Amino acid sequence: MEMKTRETASMEELIEQAESFLRQCYSELEKSPAELNGRIEAVHKEIRQTGTYHHTADELTHGARMAWRNNSRCIGRLFWHTLEVNDARQANTAPQVAEALLRHLERAGNGGRIRPVMTVFRSGTEPDRAIRIWNHQLIRYAGYPAADGQPRRGDPASDAFTAVCRKLGWQGSGGDFDVLPLVISIGEEPPRWFTIPGSLVQEVPLSHPEIERFGELGLRWYAVPVVSDMLLEIGGIRYPAAPFNGWYMETEIGSRNLGDYGRYNRLPEVADLLGLDRSTNTSLWKDRALLELNRAVLHSFKLAGVSIVDHHTAADQFVRFQEQERQKGREVSGKWHWLIPPMSPSSTPIWEDNKLRELNLSPRLIYQKPAYAGRDSNPERDEPAGQEASALPVQEMKCPFHQ
Amino acid sequence: MEMKTRETASMEELIEQAESFLRQCYSELEKSPAELNGRIEAVHKEIRQTGTYHHTADELTHGARMAWRNNSRCIGRLFWHTLEVNDARQANTAPQVAEALLRHLERAGNGGRIRPVMTVFRSGTEPDRAIRIWNHQLIRYAGYPAADGQPRRGDPASDAFTAVCRKLGWQGSGGDFDVLPLVISIGEEPPRWFTIPGSLVQEVPLSHPEIERFGELGLRWYAVPVVSDMLLEIGGIRYPAAPFNGWYMETEIGSRNLGDYGRYNRLPEVADLLGLDRSTNTSLWKDRALLELNRAVLHSFKLAGVSIVDHHTAADQFVRFQEQERQKGREVSGKWHWLIPPMSPSSTPIWEDNKLRELNLSPRLIYQKPAYAGRDSNPERDEPAGQEASALPVQEMKCPFHQ
Repeated sequence: MEMKTRETASMEELIEQAESFLRQCYSELEKSPAELNGRIEAVHKEIRQTGTYHHTADELTHGARMAWRNNSRCIGRLFWHTLEVNDARQANTAPQVAEALLRHLERAGNGGRIRPVMTVFRSGTEPDRAIRIWNHQLIRYAGYPAADGQPRRGDPASDAFTAVCRKLGWQGSGGDFDVLPLVISIGEEPPRWFTIPGSLVQEVPLSHPEIERFGELGLRWYAVPVVSDMLLEIGGIRYPAAPFNGWYMETEIGSRNLGDYGRYNRLPEVADLLGLDRSTNTSLWKDRALLELNRAVLHSFKLAGVSIVDHHTAADQFVRFQEQERQKGREVSGKWHWLIPPMSPSSTPIWEDNKLRELNLSPRLIYQKPAYAGRDSNPERDEPAGQEASALPVQEMKCPFHQ
Repeated sequence: MEMKTRETASMEELIEQAESFLRQCYSELEKSPAELNGRIEAVHKEIRQTGTYHHTADELTHGARMAWRNNSRCIGRLFWHTLEVNDARQANTAPQVAEALLRHLERAGNGGRIRPVMTVFRSGTEPDRAIRIWNHQLIRYAGYPAADGQPRRGDPASDAFTAVCRKLGWQGSGGDFDVLPLVISIGEEPPRWFTIPGSLVQEVPLSHPEIERFGELGLRWYAVPVVSDMLLEIGGIRYPAAPFNGWYMETEIGSRNLGDYGRYNRLPEVADLLGLDRSTNTSLWKDRALLELNRAVLHSFKLAGVSIVDHHTAADQFVRFQEQERQKGREVSGKWHWLIPPMSPSSTPIWEDNKLRELNLSPRLIYQKPAYAGRDSNPERDEPAGQEASALPVQEMKCPFHQ
């Protein structure tokens, strides 16, 4: 009986969330009141009969775009309405999911002119059939902790997932830039892994507009950041596999991925190449190394014809997004300490924005625990944590307030 | 009768605050329980008889130091216990106050080896005798908005106060670096202004370690930042005039005062001097100009023998402060978005600190409205706003969350 009550309560909640979403979605898409009312009625009926409901293609596309628009951490939301949404709800098996992910990479990569894309797999209403992508991003470099007298290699952020991949049988070269395989699970079935064909992994070797020897550092980064471990929620329906991408802002690579002490930590090498004095903080060698690393990222991506945005332009675009939303009568949800860039933040207009507030908006992107966390002992723990999440283009910050 | 009740309530509140302060203060100063209990008894008696109480010299000194230690926005708190506290509670007239402020400048400046100093004037319990310093900082440059076809000059942050000074009869040169006079009021008496003798205003002309022509920009800044418009609260007693100083962190001058668009806005000139391409954001010319401006600040202050700290060293010192406090069993109050420096913040350990929380600690420094705000119409509005405030060394950020 208690179980029954709970189910009824959650069904009423779902009806409420569905209706709220449909009203906003249909209003924004300028559909007629008759169409809206007909759809609401049909959804009510579907939920009462089956306990859930299915989004139409239009609802899925616009809902996904709204989720991007609502994400309080993303500086690149000016382009929310350009998001291309692939409906992959029919994918049933791990190979089918992998195939859809490869199509995502191809479509998003687009030979360098990156398209913002989201691929949505079926909703998580049947736990034993829930699709999970184990990767944090579809393309990501492996991490190998120091061991047996060998120095650490690769991306420390990938250490845990790399260990999972190796346990599954994948073998990396042990280098700094090994692309990890796709790892996919359906329900509680064992996960399967798939190598990404090299032709779908566009990478950019880093060179510098002036420093000729910069190439000797052997730095590189991949072109397309596809966040693949977040949950998409639209009108009460939860999609635990809905990978999405934008294009990079240069500081995500130059300042954070390659510069962070806890990531590739390459500022000392860059400073040495530049001949900077690392014996004192007052030479500001870290700041100079960061600057040149970020310049190299911008220069190299442009040279390779791969879309990228600098943090000044991104901040200006965010201001335009805020104006656009104001004109539409919508409030922008925003978190100051996620939106400021990690280089020269006070030189961008976001620094002085005293109106940023985080709102609890839906549709939205939600963090969930990595699919491999606690997998052996208690798979149910993989439930979404319900925390608001990072978005397009992925802001690779590790701000304390949002871990 | 209602009035009486209110007074009794606030008297009880004051007793509570006084006792709480005395317990912590005497414990930290390792005074005996007998001494503490005797003092609490005396303070109770004094409050019941007079409605207020007077701090001993030791209490004033340690209370002021605790206020610095408690300030959640200050990165330089490692040195809180070195604060030198001048007891100026006997100053009665505007000239006496001015005299004490000049002594503060001399003591703090110390020929360049800056000492953290606070000068505490009498508490604000008698409104008609309340001492207010109208300046934001004791030394600060005037600001002149554009007028009559002339371009704007000086520091935009000083425009309002400069107008007040001119109305009082002060005349500036109309240049970019005119030192404003001290403006002091007692109760509702008209304010009086005092020129600061040039010998007490140490300034540093900016040059660059490599760029010879940097000096042609004619940039300079003063050596000692003395915040003079905040209220000090110790054990329920409020001191509305308690100017204090630390030494500068270089980004306060290089990134904010001279670099901010809404302040001196000198990045374009610096970029032009460096021959950077300002036609595109992707040259990162703002970031490079900021870097060289900050290097010039550090270089010039060192050359002049004036104390200054770079943001990397300051961040490391903050981490040491946190460790020191942990060892003492005290929790550190901190605000992430005030503590991160405005240049390369992700290269400092504060960026990843996920334990920073703002606590409501006392003694503390509190913002109050400028003394000249609403002075003509309603002087009572000068009451402290009760908001937590910036501290030593003054962090010249205008973060939205803390205006």
